[in-house]
Amino acid sequence: EDVKKQQTVKSSDPYSSDPERHPVLHVNSLKPFNAEPPPEILSDSYITPSAFFFKRNHFPVPQVDPASYRLHVEGLPGGTLTLSLEELKTRFPKHTVTATLQCAGNRRSEMNEVKQVKGLNWGIAAISNATWGGVKLRDVLLAAGYRPDVAQWALHVQFEGLDKDMTGTNYGASIPLNKAVSEEGDVLLAYEMNGEDLPADHGFPVRVVVPGVVGARNVKWLGKIIVSAEESSSHWQQNDYKGFSPGTDWDTVDFKSAPAIQELPIQSAITTPEDGTVIDRDREEITVKGYAWSGGGREVIRVDVSLDGGKTWHVAQLRSSDEGKAPDPSPPLGKAWAWKLWEITAPLPAEIKELEIVCKAVDNSYNMQPDTVPPIWNLRGVLSNAWHRVKVKIREDLSGE
Amino acid sequence: EDVKKQQTVKSSDPYSSDPERHPVLHVNSLKPFNAEPPPEILSDSYITPSAFFFKRNHFPVPQVDPASYRLHVEGLPGGTLTLSLEELKTRFPKHTVTATLQCAGNRRSEMNEVKQVKGLNWGIAAISNATWGGVKLRDVLLAAGYRPDVAQWALHVQFEGLDKDMTGTNYGASIPLNKAVSEEGDVLLAYEMNGEDLPADHGFPVRVVVPGVVGARNVKWLGKIIVSAEESSSHWQQNDYKGFSPGTDWDTVDFKSAPAIQELPIQSAITTPEDGTVIDRDREEITVKGYAWSGGGREVIRVDVSLDGGKTWHVAQLRSSDEGKAPDPSPPLGKAWAWKLWEITAPLPAEIKELEIVCKAVDNSYNMQPDTVPPIWNLRGVLSNAWHRVKVKIREDLSGE
Ligand SMILES: [Mo]
Ligand SMILES: [Mo]
Repeated sequence: EDVKKQQTVKSSDPYSSDPERHPVLHVNSLKPFNAEPPPEILSDSYITPSAFFFKRNHFPVPQVDPASYRLHVEGLPGGTLTLSLEELKTRFPKHTVTATLQCAGNRRSEMNEVKQVKGLNWGIAAISNATWGGVKLRDVLLAAGYRPDVAQWALHVQFEGLDKDMTGTNYGASIPLNKAVSEEGDVLLAYEMNGEDLPADHGFPVRVVVPGVVGARNVKWLGKIIVSAEESSSHWQQNDYKGFSPGTDWDTVDFKSAPAIQELPIQSAITTPEDGTVIDRDREEITVKGYAWSGGGREVIRVDVSLDGGKTWHVAQLRSSDEGKAPDPSPPLGKAWAWKLWEITAPLPAEIKELEIVCKAVDNSYNMQPDTVPPIWNLRGVLSNAWHRVKVKIREDLSGE
Repeated sequence: EDVKKQQTVKSSDPYSSDPERHPVLHVNSLKPFNAEPPPEILSDSYITPSAFFFKRNHFPVPQVDPASYRLHVEGLPGGTLTLSLEELKTRFPKHTVTATLQCAGNRRSEMNEVKQVKGLNWGIAAISNATWGGVKLRDVLLAAGYRPDVAQWALHVQFEGLDKDMTGTNYGASIPLNKAVSEEGDVLLAYEMNGEDLPADHGFPVRVVVPGVVGARNVKWLGKIIVSAEESSSHWQQNDYKGFSPGTDWDTVDFKSAPAIQELPIQSAITTPEDGTVIDRDREEITVKGYAWSGGGREVIRVDVSLDGGKTWHVAQLRSSDEGKAPDPSPPLGKAWAWKLWEITAPLPAEIKELEIVCKAVDNSYNMQPDTVPPIWNLRGVLSNAWHRVKVKIREDLSGE
């Protein structure tokens, strides 16, 4: 009887059919599943293996049968276009794009240290880089009847996921029409991640990939596309994922006063060493690694690293491929969708007992990261991109030789 | 005889035919002429009157006869296209664009306070906003034979000014081809500024206006346009107007290691009150005004102002038109070329003898200004966009009433 009861409970749990996940992930929320990899894993490979790619779900993972899956494209003069997965794969040319996705809440925990914010307590690893394969949203919109004159009344492309809450409300978000239809925008309806079918946690069978734009608009388990004069009316577009002044609190906030986050600002963080690491003086050198990325296709052109809390700075080495592989050619201007990994090895400063390692990145619009967290603190804890700081203790050799 | 000698000296001075300038300008260099308006003038009008618009010349102002003026467009399959001023004005549709221009060296004086840099000691007013009238560079390039397949080998559009140094080297710069030919890029060959012929100091009869891009690429007295696989080989493109790490000095700098500045980062400054102002306690309120702008067509969405050095923040009111006039409609996404003026009136904090007023702006990619100058210091003193700080003393009423 006990066993039977347990099974009943289990099958009434909407999360019971969520997929297995890699045990190394740091779980911020189990239901819905939200997890990030240990930071040092991010530096191990330029392309993040799918199992380690951060997971950010709002609801249970929907179970989608690929054979009966249909994508609906609405709002264009030609009426609704409905496509099966097979049609999507065969009617349109396949493109691959390597793009970094970052959660708006990445590094939220640093804002929580200043003052409590609302949201999952993400560390620095709610960001990952993958190669996505699929069809261009532009091509599908053209097939559905998009013509330039549509831009006279339409301004947004809305996406609806097949994931939904207990009341039946689907996840939804939108992006500007010009990003969606631009030849340069590279927005994909992706059915592959790193050369394989999309994993269940990443939107199987089809998700949107909007390079350069906050994760929340990269709708997974895509069910519907709507071309519209309006932004998505969803909670996540209207009353969430927006930035406010540090002086704005829950009593004074007016969500209409700020634009929905789309392109993200310049970002970087130190993946190794970990904060609080103790190293021996006889090592003589220290190697620091991390990632750097900017939204909107802006390329990271430099990462500065300090070992003394920001008083003096060194320029790190950047890479945009896995070690041993030839680097990808420099992306066309405005299409730098993927991060750079960086590394620097520096001599340990003499007579110092603690290093305060700091990194800051610069993109090709010469945007820089802000120095400190409090002036960018905001009630939702989004857009946390101040310099990243890590403290490392140096243990002197006490043996006296 | 004295008079004659004086005239000879005067006529051998290449700057002797430079135009008259408004006496209120703060002159940073007389020959070549470089000057900025008093900051409070910038807040007086959304469109900066041409007489007050900052002047940044590299050489003597060239004397150009509009009747014999010719613009040469080179490098396209059709061969060289040569246009008179009359042809430029009559063969192509006229467009107007309100765009803010900013010198790369704006606010350099704040970097000089940290450590000496090389360059003119600009204050906060090497930025101004005007309405430019002219033809689209895109239209002229199309007339000169530009076709999409040109983009397979060409990457840049070079500009040559008619201004030149003593050795006969013309001023030159380039911009990316995609900015030049994009329908959205709004690059103009301007022959009007604020509804009148271009003034001599601003490039009469024709200059380039590259909205969202650093002043140095907005070549004045335009003589030649060259479509090319290469950037301009000029000093100003290759060995100047680039940003470096604060740790890079003149012994270690490698100008090839950094990209030429194009789009500028988020910027704001306080135009009034002036640093060092003393105000009376019985005023009870203080009004702070300033400007905010971002490069790349990114719109300023918020300006935060602090009266206590950055500990607490208030949101300023933004405007994008002259007072009394209806505000311009919100610009299309990615085409916010003009600044916002901002203002805030706040009660004087009690029991405080000195205010440290600070401003910082946010653009619609949620890029923020860095907090402090030293970490963005660079040997050329460009891209100075840290929070702007102004100190104001409060004089207590000593009469005792
Ligand atoms: Mo997110
Ligand atoms: Mo400049």
